[in-house]
Amino acid sequence: MKIVIVGASGTIGKHVTAALQRDHEIITAGSKSGNYQIDIRKPDSIRSFFEKTGPFDALVSTTGSGCFAPLSTLNDHNFRIGIDHKMMGQINLVLEGQHYIKSNGSFTLSSGVVFDEPVLQGANLSAVNGAIEGFIAAAAIELTNGVRINGVSPGVVEEAEHFFPFFPGHIPVKMEVVVQAYIKCISGAATGKIFKVR
Amino acid sequence: MKIVIVGASGTIGKHVTAALQRDHEIITAGSKSGNYQIDIRKPDSIRSFFEKTGPFDALVSTTGSGCFAPLSTLNDHNFRIGIDHKMMGQINLVLEGQHYIKSNGSFTLSSGVVFDEPVLQGANLSAVNGAIEGFIAAAAIELTNGVRINGVSPGVVEEAEHFFPFFPGHIPVKMEVVVQAYIKCISGAATGKIFKVR
Repeated sequence: MKIVIVGASGTIGKHVTAALQRDHEIITAGSKSGNYQIDIRKPDSIRSFFEKTGPFDALVSTTGSGCFAPLSTLNDHNFRIGIDHKMMGQINLVLEGQHYIKSNGSFTLSSGVVFDEPVLQGANLSAVNGAIEGFIAAAAIELTNGVRINGVSPGVVEEAEHFFPFFPGHIPVKMEVVVQAYIKCISGAATGKIFKVR
Repeated sequence: MKIVIVGASGTIGKHVTAALQRDHEIITAGSKSGNYQIDIRKPDSIRSFFEKTGPFDALVSTTGSGCFAPLSTLNDHNFRIGIDHKMMGQINLVLEGQHYIKSNGSFTLSSGVVFDEPVLQGANLSAVNGAIEGFIAAAAIELTNGVRINGVSPGVVEEAEHFFPFFPGHIPVKMEVVVQAYIKCISGAATGKIFKVR
């Protein structure tokens, strides 16, 4: 398969890339690294990216940032950080990518544990992840030509040590299991599902 | 209690207002009607609204529109309709309102059935409702001074006949039951909960 990985150099992305490149043609993309640079906050950047990749079989997004801050300091301005990046960045990859993906292809997006288990300072990302999960369920019933869409919702991953203090009591999940959840989405047959790695 | 109702003249809002005004001091707000006009898409409008209402005991939002359209026609531009109105409009009512609400007050927002049960053309609202539900769960653990936050997720309501064709097999929910779900949020003791009326 020809697989596009957005966020390929990230904490999770680099492992997903390593696992997939054994058997597939991989196109990597990132804000600063990879085969192509892309600013997922900008629909124009996404469109011109797909013009360069051409038709593909699978798109995996392992990227997306938000605003980690106390609720009392959140406002429309900093809340938009997560909306523009992790939420609309990923949703626009699908809205634009649906016009380029091959029949029976798949989209795999990234959600996260704070939707199911909120943590202090996580309200922006709880909302963003909820939006992603709602979008995936809805897009799955409308995509045509056998195209599928799923999500992976990892707990705090073992390599993201800088996040551990914000996740008291959360047992870090094994990177190997997280990677396999992405493989399930790409090479399995599910659609509209969120694979939760906890 | 002094209760602020945003969307007080809407299909659901007018019934919630009627039920609450028997026992409470009500301040109604809407885009065109009510005691105060407010454009919830604009944080400045929300801030100046709270400057006028002053401290309050409860805020209820029964408003919020999105873009109902086929997935193949959705793009960053029309997807933002729901983000700016139903999602950030309601979230900003809380982000700004948290600085005006009295101790032991409550926020009650509106989600909707398409998060749990997507329908064709509903991807924007599925995402928006997911964001609202994620935000409510997260805000509940950070609000201080006993302030609570909950949501009501109604199925298609009996008076919204223009929506029936988009909800095949959905049995319209009784307005009276929907109204009571809002009352539960305001006069009960729950926080971080989504009351689903199906």
